[in-house]
Amino acid sequence: MAKIGIVDTTFSRVDMGAIALSKVKENSEHEIERYTVPGIKDLPVACKILFEKHNSDIVLALGMAGPKPIDKQCSHESTLGLQTVQISEGKHILEVFVHMDEANTEKELYEITKNRTEKHVVNALELLKGKESLSKYAGMGRRQGKEDEGSIKLEK
Amino acid sequence: MAKIGIVDTTFSRVDMGAIALSKVKENSEHEIERYTVPGIKDLPVACKILFEKHNSDIVLALGMAGPKPIDKQCSHESTLGLQTVQISEGKHILEVFVHMDEANTEKELYEITKNRTEKHVVNALELLKGKESLSKYAGMGRRQGKEDEGSIKLEK
Amino acid sequence: MAKIGIVDTTFSRVDMGAIALSKVKENSEHEIERYTVPGIKDLPVACKILFEKHNSDIVLALGMAGPKPIDKQCSHESTLGLQTVQISEGKHILEVFVHMDEANTEKELYEITKNRTEKHVVNALELLKGKESLSKYAGMGRRQGKEDEGSIKLEK
Amino acid sequence: MAKIGIVDTTFSRVDMGAIALSKVKENSEHEIERYTVPGIKDLPVACKILFEKHNSDIVLALGMAGPKPIDKQCSHESTLGLQTVQISEGKHILEVFVHMDEANTEKELYEITKNRTEKHVVNALELLKGKESLSKYAGMGRRQGKEDEGSIKLEK
Amino acid sequence: MAKIGIVDTTFSRVDMGAIALSKVKENSEHEIERYTVPGIKDLPVACKILFEKHNSDIVLALGMAGPKPIDKQCSHESTLGLQTVQISEGKHILEVFVHMDEANTEKELYEITKNRTEKHVVNALELLKGKESLSKYAGMGRRQGKEDEGSIKLEK
Repeated sequence: MAKIGIVDTTFSRVDMGAIALSKVKENSEHEIERYTVPGIKDLPVACKILFEKHNSDIVLALGMAGPKPIDKQCSHESTLGLQTVQISEGKHILEVFVHMDEANTEKELYEITKNRTEKHVVNALELLKGKESLSKYAGMGRRQGKEDEGSIKLEK
Repeated sequence: MAKIGIVDTTFSRVDMGAIALSKVKENSEHEIERYTVPGIKDLPVACKILFEKHNSDIVLALGMAGPKPIDKQCSHESTLGLQTVQISEGKHILEVFVHMDEANTEKELYEITKNRTEKHVVNALELLKGKESLSKYAGMGRRQGKEDEGSIKLEK
Repeated sequence: MAKIGIVDTTFSRVDMGAIALSKVKENSEHEIERYTVPGIKDLPVACKILFEKHNSDIVLALGMAGPKPIDKQCSHESTLGLQTVQISEGKHILEVFVHMDEANTEKELYEITKNRTEKHVVNALELLKGKESLSKYAGMGRRQGKEDEGSIKLEK
Repeated sequence: MAKIGIVDTTFSRVDMGAIALSKVKENSEHEIERYTVPGIKDLPVACKILFEKHNSDIVLALGMAGPKPIDKQCSHESTLGLQTVQISEGKHILEVFVHMDEANTEKELYEITKNRTEKHVVNALELLKGKESLSKYAGMGRRQGKEDEGSIKLEK
Repeated sequence: MAKIGIVDTTFSRVDMGAIALSKVKENSEHEIERYTVPGIKDLPVACKILFEKHNSDIVLALGMAGPKPIDKQCSHESTLGLQTVQISEGKHILEVFVHMDEANTEKELYEITKNRTEKHVVNALELLKGKESLSKYAGMGRRQGKEDEGSIKLEK
């Protein structure tokens, strides 16, 4: 039994934390710690706190970024912080970021967000099993938030 | 009772520190430490000093960025420094940055700045209460400096 | 006898891990540790874990990046993480990244990927031999994934 | 009595170190340590050495950047290094960077450089007095290298 | 007597390591440690190893970057790594990077590379003498790889 941290934001227009929570419960018996922060740039330190103070084994960092160039800069800054936390802790953070310009309608935005969040919950559960648990899918062009692109193999 | 650090700049055209100070006092009994630096890139080390030498529990980093591309670069650099400080301290810094090209008039610039600063003071007060204090607003599309965008829910 | 870490992704459309594994076995007796992660931004912490928990002496970080600007941002973020891990460990990570817009067809993408992966396996084996093992090729315009460009020498 | 570090470059077309030295002497009795490096990217480690080996209390990092995009990249890289040093030392570095495309003539470039350098010397002297020494100028739109922009206040 | 580290790459089209080696020997009796890596992003960890395992006092990091935007990204990433190493070691790395789009012909590329490498060897020798050894050239607009731009002085 492991402990999964889930951090989400009040900025997001979709309740990504609720989606992740219910997917974890549907697929595992792992313990869950939730943390909600204002926006995407507040995620890294929350992950750090989930590892250090709440003994999480892996964290899902759930964020939505606005459609403008400055929003891409924010998600970039957050990602760099998430890299720093992962490396210093030696533990995975699965970054589930949705950019609002990925979708043309609110419905599509919701669907991308739900699909990406749920698939990364499954990835997190696999990573908890061991470093070769995902090797069966290596190089298969898997995508989160949209359809898989598949593997390219050379004909003999 | 916690201690809230407030760092502001002489570069900003709005007295963000005064706005934050009065909002903290209006909503809490927390102790306050203020620090004023020249510009946005001086904020991270000031936050570090507020945590290390003045025992702040959370810091509000208040800055204004000019309208040019080089100014976006400056705010980016400052943000990366703020990420480093937060992660090494394991404590939140709420970054309250206003870009001068967000507004068309001085009046609008003032209003965005005041709104964003005050809303982030409220976020800071919530974060001090615990990691799930903001969960009631998770995924609700909350914004600082402008109107909330609201939550997207799928019809059943 | 050294230990070579190999990290690959489920995002990649080519099974880079398999290509690397077979090239290492073809050219050496070194021990191998494999790790598969979802995407390119999950590589750095996996490298860290391969060094710290699995005693790897060098790691090959194999990733494919999509064709869009946001994908370039992701590979950039991953690279910065890989830099941090290398520097903190004092050990090389050979980054083998393929950008999907480098190729016009799936066949070409496969060939670039195979060529780059195999050549970097050879580089890794050289680096394990010592710091001057590659000096015989210094300044020779060697390329991975395409033809070498060769050395420029001044006529006397 | 404090010790002020001054780092300048041989790349700069204006002798920024000399301007800073004479301004410090004109306004204080503080001890000074000077360090000259080739270019802007050599500043961060020189600051580190001024703090660690020469016990500086604050450092002025004086640099000039060329007019091309690659030069902006260099100044960005230097700034990130300066952030890292400041945060690890818990001490301020006042970055005084001039971009050659800020001016249309050599005379103007000289004047911007002198103005910015001297104003930041004064800022450094204030910061040495304490964290609220600059609070009297908070939000006043102060600029270095050009005219102040002034404070925006709402009419009652 | 100091020890100078020299790291070069097999990617470069000019044998920068050989140029540096012969210039160091021509101008000093310092000991030299050479390290050759595949490309520009492998330089930082090699510098770290030259400092930590081979006791270098200063390192010359010699690299050539391709002409495309992705190549600029690579040199940027390498530079950030070099910053991290310098700051953690408290020792200078002189970065000698040549961008292939700086030259129009192979001959010109060779000449820029040779000039920049040799001038930075001289800079390294000066830095080894002390922190004010280059102060006589402060603000003189010195350039590596091309002609100096000279100092701007105000007429009285």
